[in-house]
Amino acid sequence: MWNAPKVGILGGGQLGRMLVESANRLNIQANVLDADNSPAKQISFHDGHVTGSFKEREAVRQLAKSCDVITAEIEHVDTYALEEVASQVRVEPSWQAIRTIQNKFDQKEHLRKYGIPMADHRELVKNTPEELAEIGEQLGFPMMLKSKTMAYDGRGNYRVNSKADIPAALEALKDRPLYSEKWAYFKMELAVMVIKTKDDVLSYPTVETVQEDSVCKLVYAPARNVSDTINEKAQALARKAVSAFEGKGAFGVEMFLLEDDSLMLCEIASRIHNSGHYTIEGCGLSQFDSHLRAILDLPIPAKSLEIRQPSIMLNLIGGSTTDSHLQAAEHALSIPNASIHLYSKGAAKPGRKMGHVTVTAPTMHEAETIIQPLVEVVDNIRAQRSDVKTPAAKSGPSPPPPQVAVIMGSDSDLKTLVPGLKLLRDYFGVEPAVEITSAHRTPNYMADYSAQAASRGIKVIIAAAGGAAHLPGMAAAHTALPVIGVPVKGSSLDGVDSLYSIVQMPRGVPVATVGINNSINAALLAARVLGSFDPAIQRKVEAYAEDARAENMEKKGTKLRELGWEKYFEQM
Amino acid sequence: MWNAPKVGILGGGQLGRMLVESANRLNIQANVLDADNSPAKQISFHDGHVTGSFKEREAVRQLAKSCDVITAEIEHVDTYALEEVASQVRVEPSWQAIRTIQNKFDQKEHLRKYGIPMADHRELVKNTPEELAEIGEQLGFPMMLKSKTMAYDGRGNYRVNSKADIPAALEALKDRPLYSEKWAYFKMELAVMVIKTKDDVLSYPTVETVQEDSVCKLVYAPARNVSDTINEKAQALARKAVSAFEGKGAFGVEMFLLEDDSLMLCEIASRIHNSGHYTIEGCGLSQFDSHLRAILDLPIPAKSLEIRQPSIMLNLIGGSTTDSHLQAAEHALSIPNASIHLYSKGAAKPGRKMGHVTVTAPTMHEAETIIQPLVEVVDNIRAQRSDVKTPAAKSGPSPPPPQVAVIMGSDSDLKTLVPGLKLLRDYFGVEPAVEITSAHRTPNYMADYSAQAASRGIKVIIAAAGGAAHLPGMAAAHTALPVIGVPVKGSSLDGVDSLYSIVQMPRGVPVATVGINNSINAALLAARVLGSFDPAIQRKVEAYAEDARAENMEKKGTKLRELGWEKYFEQM
Repeated sequence: MWNAPKVGILGGGQLGRMLVESANRLNIQANVLDADNSPAKQISFHDGHVTGSFKEREAVRQLAKSCDVITAEIEHVDTYALEEVASQVRVEPSWQAIRTIQNKFDQKEHLRKYGIPMADHRELVKNTPEELAEIGEQLGFPMMLKSKTMAYDGRGNYRVNSKADIPAALEALKDRPLYSEKWAYFKMELAVMVIKTKDDVLSYPTVETVQEDSVCKLVYAPARNVSDTINEKAQALARKAVSAFEGKGAFGVEMFLLEDDSLMLCEIASRIHNSGHYTIEGCGLSQFDSHLRAILDLPIPAKSLEIRQPSIMLNLIGGSTTDSHLQAAEHALSIPNASIHLYSKGAAKPGRKMGHVTVTAPTMHEAETIIQPLVEVVDNIRAQRSDVKTPAAKSGPSPPPPQVAVIMGSDSDLKTLVPGLKLLRDYFGVEPAVEITSAHRTPNYMADYSAQAASRGIKVIIAAAGGAAHLPGMAAAHTALPVIGVPVKGSSLDGVDSLYSIVQMPRGVPVATVGINNSINAALLAARVLGSFDPAIQRKVEAYAEDARAENMEKKGTKLRELGWEKYFEQM
Repeated sequence: MWNAPKVGILGGGQLGRMLVESANRLNIQANVLDADNSPAKQISFHDGHVTGSFKEREAVRQLAKSCDVITAEIEHVDTYALEEVASQVRVEPSWQAIRTIQNKFDQKEHLRKYGIPMADHRELVKNTPEELAEIGEQLGFPMMLKSKTMAYDGRGNYRVNSKADIPAALEALKDRPLYSEKWAYFKMELAVMVIKTKDDVLSYPTVETVQEDSVCKLVYAPARNVSDTINEKAQALARKAVSAFEGKGAFGVEMFLLEDDSLMLCEIASRIHNSGHYTIEGCGLSQFDSHLRAILDLPIPAKSLEIRQPSIMLNLIGGSTTDSHLQAAEHALSIPNASIHLYSKGAAKPGRKMGHVTVTAPTMHEAETIIQPLVEVVDNIRAQRSDVKTPAAKSGPSPPPPQVAVIMGSDSDLKTLVPGLKLLRDYFGVEPAVEITSAHRTPNYMADYSAQAASRGIKVIIAAAGGAAHLPGMAAAHTALPVIGVPVKGSSLDGVDSLYSIVQMPRGVPVATVGINNSINAALLAARVLGSFDPAIQRKVEAYAEDARAENMEKKGTKLRELGWEKYFEQM
């Protein structure tokens, strides 16, 4: 039975606010420790809140008195206060986890013991130019100089490009505990939300993050152009890293994907995280739902962490005036399937996170296309800021991956394929991937191409071949996709050789054979296959049939009736 | 620019609460007029709320002073108060619309003028047995006796089965203004949420509602086994009916689908509605988002009203004890993709709406399957109530619609098809729809069957025929689906006649032809087509190929190496 637990939250910013949204829906009282009008308190009216700061020991003590479990929306809390109250109230995740994680150097030293791959790093003990120069010799330039504590959203980091930058770097981060990190040459930044429960470590799928001004700008869920293998490896790495800490709840794990497709951990947050906001619309349970359930030992069905539809999250960042970010929110009202979340933080400062928008769509390409105008509005707002000089992070929609592959054994077959290729591209708007690969001359390439087609997003393969036409059947032997075979008429046997070679496949390996030289029908068949799962394409198949009917009935039939058969034949 | 409008809401129950959720996310202040701890006020902390009842004139006046626009979560408000304040503040929808709609007889008389189809009804003027008996003569028995006002969730309705029921009916509804309605023999109850904006009337898709104890129990979105035509007709009827009223916002429209597939309007609510709760998870914008935007003249992209994934909403109704509904909420925690909404209404009374759960899934069948255990928990909670005697409304999952149709010209082709049919059913778990229909003997049935296949959910057709094999090509001429042709070997020509008849289709109408008599390959091809869009099926296609490889390489190859070719051949 519902036991009406009371949850205490250190911090009432946007993360606390979205956590309170989840608590509200389960009728769980969330007692927030923060200033009186903080975003989280605005949507939660009861007398259990505590006024104060999550860094004040006395305030934490007061919160602990009225709660069954305490959690935090931020790492930078007073963990000694948490340690003290942990004897009276559950603290999730553990104060030890938060204490280790809030110090980024300790975090990395801890993770190193668990074999987590990370960029090489060195602690500074004396914070002198000589010491940093020596570390620079070891790690190479550029390298990052980082504050161990109170570092977030790029604050506390300084890029040291060469020995000449050392004095400026130490001046920028003076009086802070420091370490230095080898530069990571990555091709992509990935993130995974991990949910640690009383007896399990679960993960959401791997997402791609785009940073701008050292702040998260965009999140693509799932990560684009990342294979299932890497997606799963990143989740496994994230779960392994989080397993190194005690306690329950959500952890945000940021990673680099390097040029060689290996992964390197960037950092962990012991809390709900910006990279997981897409889960509100994108998944069955949001990261806030899951965090709440994890700390309360309530069930979390693993399936609820899967992505329901491709999603893109865009942050709304404070611009040059206190309300310039609202231009983006206003624009988002007209974007299809855009969910707008404003955090009610009052007047914006430049660079401050004021809200976010999540767009969902049946395909990532569609999501990219519909959010693009909003990204441009956000870029324009940023361009007005005097505190940023760099160009906006790139985020244009990538072309959709082709759904149809057209392969031929020889370029002599291309002529036969052209009518079908044109029909696909010009009538159906389906741009195929076209390739020459021969079963006889390039057997290994043919095999690899076919075997990898499905994982590249191909849904159907068209293969043309003549004579002892092996290509369609061999492609079919290397893929689970439907293969459409076009028999090409050669110089002898009228194409019957090609037809029999393609259609008379042994039981177990089918080829969908069309008439000799009939690439139009191959293209239409591919369109019908796609159309069974894409209403827009199915409507075009219907329109194509209707065009043919009208052409036959209305144009040709009318002309024949008007002219009579004899004149008609003369004009043919 | 965001103009920070203030919205006043008459009523702070669950509908008001979910409207406040939407307002919170847009940082729009919602001032709620209701009791102090009403559900909507609990999630909205500011000093703009008004304590009182939406039926008190003075309280409405007070609310109007602090708002830019006023709306209501319930029809049963004081419309004379709204009429009075309409000179100072916008009221949406109009007080006229609410006044007409809150009196169900007036609502129907008004809609009648606009040609909306409804059950025949008669007003009672004297409320005497004689008068009702005369109306019974006219409308027939059974008929419904209804209160014109304050009728909702079955309250104010009485079913009059025969003349003998008349005294009891009049006693049950005494002192109320009454009308009587002809009994509607419907096969299904449908509902549509309509959003009236300043210059448009939009609608969400048509959903199916299941009522129990005259209260909504389940909502299936979209409606199951309802053709696109009926779905669109129902939306058009709902929009037409709502167009008869002045003002902006959400309107819930309930309809009957009769045996002859015609539609009849049941009733309209001038507000956000239980039948639209599924939109929170199911659509890009929820009904609450849309209502808010409509009354504030903010944009609503039509695409955001489409259904993102099939959804089922189940109400959590108060049971025999004040917290028995929480058993269902607790069970729902373990249901995949179940979003739980509890209304924080305190102690439950039997039959009261205390919360709801929405489940989403890639297919309606999957959603039905995963919610079924929760429906059973809800049925058990209801069975404990002493105030209900009837069995629970039926709601078991319907079998999934077949995705593959297998047709043959004659039962003599069945033998050839059996290996493919068994493979589909037993290996791939795909139960096909199997039919005999001949291009030559039943040409019209063949045409209709093929033409309607796509709208029945079929994704691919397998057609087998021998001799002058027309069936695959003719089926392809009547559908936009991919058609797989199996040439059946007849008594002469070795099946070459069938092969040529099927594969050599004219340009424009493709048939995916497999080898002569090779129904296994037809089945595999169908599985490959489905597999391109269903990872589980694609994995089975891969497993099938792996089984064949292992059979050839490991079993047969090993045996040959062990026995030598001569002994092997002797044992064949």
